[in-house]
Amino acid sequence: MAHQYVLEFATDGRGTRDITDDIARVVSESGIATGLAHVFVQHTSCSLTITENADPDVRRDLETILARLAPDNDPAYRHRTEGPDDMAAHARSVLTGTALTVPVGAGKLLLGTWQGIFLWEHRTEPQQRKLVVTVV
Amino acid sequence: MAHQYVLEFATDGRGTRDITDDIARVVSESGIATGLAHVFVQHTSCSLTITENADPDVRRDLETILARLAPDNDPAYRHRTEGPDDMAAHARSVLTGTALTVPVGAGKLLLGTWQGIFLWEHRTEPQQRKLVVTVV
Amino acid sequence: MAHQYVLEFATDGRGTRDITDDIARVVSESGIATGLAHVFVQHTSCSLTITENADPDVRRDLETILARLAPDNDPAYRHRTEGPDDMAAHARSVLTGTALTVPVGAGKLLLGTWQGIFLWEHRTEPQQRKLVVTVV
Repeated sequence: MAHQYVLEFATDGRGTRDITDDIARVVSESGIATGLAHVFVQHTSCSLTITENADPDVRRDLETILARLAPDNDPAYRHRTEGPDDMAAHARSVLTGTALTVPVGAGKLLLGTWQGIFLWEHRTEPQQRKLVVTVV
Repeated sequence: MAHQYVLEFATDGRGTRDITDDIARVVSESGIATGLAHVFVQHTSCSLTITENADPDVRRDLETILARLAPDNDPAYRHRTEGPDDMAAHARSVLTGTALTVPVGAGKLLLGTWQGIFLWEHRTEPQQRKLVVTVV
Repeated sequence: MAHQYVLEFATDGRGTRDITDDIARVVSESGIATGLAHVFVQHTSCSLTITENADPDVRRDLETILARLAPDNDPAYRHRTEGPDDMAAHARSVLTGTALTVPVGAGKLLLGTWQGIFLWEHRTEPQQRKLVVTVV
């Protein structure tokens, strides 16, 4: 059986937010011992990633790198309906991904010691973000 | 129970093709109400992505960005068996991913309003592409 | 039912290692005929990718491209606790992904002819890496 939950987050604008505990709670509520937890954002200008959870400088450096790969306000972009960060946000979402699947064992997320699950806002302004979590 | 389908597409060469309706049809045929739809391309020079489905300029700008990250005909490439777009296509496939998993609820793909599922051809010439869709 | 296995690999430092046969063996042991095989690394400085399995130059060129996107020892990085390859390894892990899901049909991985599953070490020194494989 699949268990499905919708989570909503108000982001503070561009940056990462650790949602590991939120996903762990949903997995625990599902009662599923062994399986997979799938997390999905219903948006095209934010993403989900798993990365180092200890030193916040890692996520700061990841922003630095993404700003080079998909800069804001690039003159080559045609799509700029919602401002200088609009197309950069779509590109960063594509490069880092809108879905994650994490193994579940003994009723818990089987993450490594240094792994955290992060919701990554790519728009500069705060947004409301909807996630669908499915545990199978 | 898992339901599995094979879909084939003839691409027009480099660019994106919206396959959301094709995947939605398979999900509907599976009869599964709550679960996950997994889409997989059996190739290493195309990919699958979820991005904005309204303004085609978004996908045009994504091509512009990928052309910088993994340019055609780069003198640093050693692999060029199938021409100047060969290695660039493999790299773009790795950076954007050959698989996608989307939640299914009430028998439908739980995509956000602006999300579309795209088959992304990275070779310049048209190709035949085989996808495996698994609904669990 | 979900079947879950832990695999361990000692990497030789930066580079790719073909683990397709290891994953295929686990799928075969699971006894599952139709479904999904999910592979997950419990680390934030290596990744998993599916790419061309015939010409090793493809993986060599992928390293060349990643070295441009996330170079070692970049003066802009703040996180450098574990040396000049530390932050580059985290960034490459985020860009290429720590999880893969592959369809299973007739008890086998449904990979295309040229697709291999690779464990991608991004640290320059050899490491011990733990993978969780879940077949559903």
